[in-house]
Amino acid sequence: MTECTSSPRASAQVQAQAQAFPLDRWYVAGLAWELEDRPLARTLLDRPVVMFRLPDGSVAALEDRCCHRELPLSCGTIEPRGLRCGYHGLLFDSGGQCLEIPGQQRIPAKACVSSFELRESDQILWIWMGAHPDSRPTEPPPAYPVHGDPRYRFGGDVVHYDAPYQLIHDNLLDLSHLGYVHLKTIGGNAGIHMNAELQVTQEGDTVKVVRWMPDSEPPPTYAAAWPFAGRIDRWQEVEFHPSHVCIWTGAMDAGSGRLDDAQRHGFHMRGFHGVTPETADSAHYFWTIATNPHPQRPDPTQLVIEQTAATFEEDRLVIEAQYRNQQRFGARPVIDIHVDVGPNRARRVIRRLCEAGIQAGAQAGTPSMARA
Amino acid sequence: MTECTSSPRASAQVQAQAQAFPLDRWYVAGLAWELEDRPLARTLLDRPVVMFRLPDGSVAALEDRCCHRELPLSCGTIEPRGLRCGYHGLLFDSGGQCLEIPGQQRIPAKACVSSFELRESDQILWIWMGAHPDSRPTEPPPAYPVHGDPRYRFGGDVVHYDAPYQLIHDNLLDLSHLGYVHLKTIGGNAGIHMNAELQVTQEGDTVKVVRWMPDSEPPPTYAAAWPFAGRIDRWQEVEFHPSHVCIWTGAMDAGSGRLDDAQRHGFHMRGFHGVTPETADSAHYFWTIATNPHPQRPDPTQLVIEQTAATFEEDRLVIEAQYRNQQRFGARPVIDIHVDVGPNRARRVIRRLCEAGIQAGAQAGTPSMARA
Amino acid sequence: MTECTSSPRASAQVQAQAQAFPLDRWYVAGLAWELEDRPLARTLLDRPVVMFRLPDGSVAALEDRCCHRELPLSCGTIEPRGLRCGYHGLLFDSGGQCLEIPGQQRIPAKACVSSFELRESDQILWIWMGAHPDSRPTEPPPAYPVHGDPRYRFGGDVVHYDAPYQLIHDNLLDLSHLGYVHLKTIGGNAGIHMNAELQVTQEGDTVKVVRWMPDSEPPPTYAAAWPFAGRIDRWQEVEFHPSHVCIWTGAMDAGSGRLDDAQRHGFHMRGFHGVTPETADSAHYFWTIATNPHPQRPDPTQLVIEQTAATFEEDRLVIEAQYRNQQRFGARPVIDIHVDVGPNRARRVIRRLCEAGIQAGAQAGTPSMARA
Repeated sequence: MTECTSSPRASAQVQAQAQAFPLDRWYVAGLAWELEDRPLARTLLDRPVVMFRLPDGSVAALEDRCCHRELPLSCGTIEPRGLRCGYHGLLFDSGGQCLEIPGQQRIPAKACVSSFELRESDQILWIWMGAHPDSRPTEPPPAYPVHGDPRYRFGGDVVHYDAPYQLIHDNLLDLSHLGYVHLKTIGGNAGIHMNAELQVTQEGDTVKVVRWMPDSEPPPTYAAAWPFAGRIDRWQEVEFHPSHVCIWTGAMDAGSGRLDDAQRHGFHMRGFHGVTPETADSAHYFWTIATNPHPQRPDPTQLVIEQTAATFEEDRLVIEAQYRNQQRFGARPVIDIHVDVGPNRARRVIRRLCEAGIQAGAQAGTPSMARA
Repeated sequence: MTECTSSPRASAQVQAQAQAFPLDRWYVAGLAWELEDRPLARTLLDRPVVMFRLPDGSVAALEDRCCHRELPLSCGTIEPRGLRCGYHGLLFDSGGQCLEIPGQQRIPAKACVSSFELRESDQILWIWMGAHPDSRPTEPPPAYPVHGDPRYRFGGDVVHYDAPYQLIHDNLLDLSHLGYVHLKTIGGNAGIHMNAELQVTQEGDTVKVVRWMPDSEPPPTYAAAWPFAGRIDRWQEVEFHPSHVCIWTGAMDAGSGRLDDAQRHGFHMRGFHGVTPETADSAHYFWTIATNPHPQRPDPTQLVIEQTAATFEEDRLVIEAQYRNQQRFGARPVIDIHVDVGPNRARRVIRRLCEAGIQAGAQAGTPSMARA
Repeated sequence: MTECTSSPRASAQVQAQAQAFPLDRWYVAGLAWELEDRPLARTLLDRPVVMFRLPDGSVAALEDRCCHRELPLSCGTIEPRGLRCGYHGLLFDSGGQCLEIPGQQRIPAKACVSSFELRESDQILWIWMGAHPDSRPTEPPPAYPVHGDPRYRFGGDVVHYDAPYQLIHDNLLDLSHLGYVHLKTIGGNAGIHMNAELQVTQEGDTVKVVRWMPDSEPPPTYAAAWPFAGRIDRWQEVEFHPSHVCIWTGAMDAGSGRLDDAQRHGFHMRGFHGVTPETADSAHYFWTIATNPHPQRPDPTQLVIEQTAATFEEDRLVIEAQYRNQQRFGARPVIDIHVDVGPNRARRVIRRLCEAGIQAGAQAGTPSMARA
């Protein structure tokens, strides 16, 4: 992020909530195809951002506020050199510097807006959300080679959640809800899900939850997409990272191979789930699902994507109802059950990263968005 | 109410407003036919409640929050033994005890939710709202034999008000507004309403307002429902109870009988009006209207119910506009006029009951929802 | 304004914000044709007002709250002697005095509501917003003879803004935004607007911004309305008053006359823009546009009005987006550019009037809406 001299770091309100998110890391800001010929407004980690793609194909992200009269720059238009404000025509380049004030020769030093590092990688847009104005990326954004793997076809979408991002983590890390929430699509028998053995492992900030369901009934989406002979050996492998979750599910004919073989044949659904806080109370959910068409069957990609979208809509309804209920009941004790091991580990990772961010800010002695 | 051990009595927010309602009494929670095969969510006196009917016909009410991850239980499904949560499948019985945690043998002692006494009586659902967690009903819910009287046919509905419940009391206890608000249906000449003599009496917590309008013009609904010869002797008898208001209106041909005869012949409209606070600022209004079909005329019940529903919609618009205006003007003096005697008595009853509840809670030395 | 004895001056909330507006002056409350046979509710400078026209043609404005049970009087009906409340039928005259309480002989002294001076002048409704309850108009409302000038035909409308009134002043006083916001209608080449010389003058509370654009291209609306031979000499003359802004724009064939001639021939658009705060955060915008039909061309008035309405809708979208952005970013520095001279002068006028109002209230030693 490059902080414009005319902009204080963030409003008091933003700072107070900032410790709710780990900072100094890449977050998903969008899917590559969202940026065409119009600017895109999106609030990310409490910061209103405008993203745009210049005619040369490069992408950029600025604070979504003209420094003249505060119109969102996302109301403006893209030109070869940058983004022009839709009120009085100030033109800003990808770094936030004002290049032109129509009708005025002199461009004051303060004519600039803050910019953010935005990278396009594997058709995902990643934004660096720094704890300090001078925070710079220390590593490239995460790779997601599935999007470029010729065995797969994929599609996806963006879902807005009126709920905090960690409730989405909980949901993705505990697929036992499939048997109750997604009965009609990817779910299937609730008892099998609930009773399947769960392996939870952790390495650094990565939490992995693996559930194998050998010799089970194919759920509707699976049966529609792949010519299984009968019962199936099914896998669900969830890999949590603080900014995104990868879920590899699939199945093969029962007894036809080893579930722990990385080159497993059969039907595959590989999901990418970017979970980015919008505010402390809301989130963006960027998903893609990739699948492998069977050579003797019609391409199931469209079907899989449609059913996945329907499934995620079911999740959204549940999670938003859950959050509204948490809000109206206030802080109250809950009980944990066996399926909560994975989600609880992920919550500990996030908590540790938030606390580390606060400490780092305190030690550096510099102003930090991560300090309240 | 049976308080689950894992639930504190009520959130601080709920307690602060609780003194706005008399507690330790039955309130209307619904109409019997609202409970079929799906759970029903309704907030009553600031407490979110889920009501449901088991396949055996019994009814039950629980706090609308699963003790695991706080999804409203009203998002779940009814099974023979109870209500199953729609997220991870926990099953609760009518008393709020968890019977099953799918995939887990042990059911922790804290796996329970609070329950409320819910009784079905004369096709009305009554809920006991206690001041303490251990408050139990001290009497059966009020009887309403009109619903079982073979002379009448009835129907009704539920209306949500964005206004405090006492504004509905005011409206029901002062039918002089009929001449201005309900001109097209049950109203009729405003002057006759306003000038009719009013008798207001009180016995304990019951306030009675009687208005007789001898030798008056039949209003449109009356004329459509009953073959009056010409002018009519008309009665309006309102009986206020803290939880509901009974209104007996009707008319007979002018001079054909005594208005003070309990066995009056003629056209009858007997209204039941359950008025239950949702919050301090909103209310539920449960109404039924029963009428006696004339032997030589088509059954007017449907007509009467439709016109009553239209009438209550007129009331709702007025009362909600009144409340919005009270809110934007803030506390300001008002004047009273002659028609306010009944409403003001009812307000004194409610105030006394609220204050008595606060005192009782203080004397008992136990935590009480009625204490701020 | 005549304050009713039963009404305290204003709620604390209203007083706290009152210093945001200059008081003791006329504001536009409506356009004459808005008052027909039904009362009109409108909040003006934080005061909810009901306006109505009696059958004798006179107009009146009262506080929009019945003194009995606080229903808005705008829910009532107009009668020859005044406005009758829609709940219990109290009748109020144009001065706010209660004339009748149905069913009751005695009318208490406190049965009254506050009234406001409302004047109809040149088809504009002007209301006097006083700083004190006993503040009386010290001068007639502003004249606007254009509405009665036989050379012009005019029309107009009312627009509600979810934005503070001064953002509308900014917009009207800086027509340089035409080149970016109104490209399709009255805008035209952005560069010409931005580079045209600007004359800003001030006399008392009146700020004048004049921009001449000789030898320029006619914008779409102009070309559609007037048979220009080719290029045009164009004028934009903006005259700011604290309660309204007059904008005289137009053009003649290039070189065919003097731009500083008050009797200029050619195509004229004369705009009246009443800008009245609704609250500190919202405003009413009352506009009319008058134009002179060309003798050999179809009357362009309807076209000009439609395109003007579309233009003002473009402005509203920009200004409301601007205000939402100001709110979410909080107080942050901005830069000024060359076009801000006029708007900034107008803001200084408003600030001075607000401060003078506060001082006057303090000196008078009387309670004042202008004092916090």
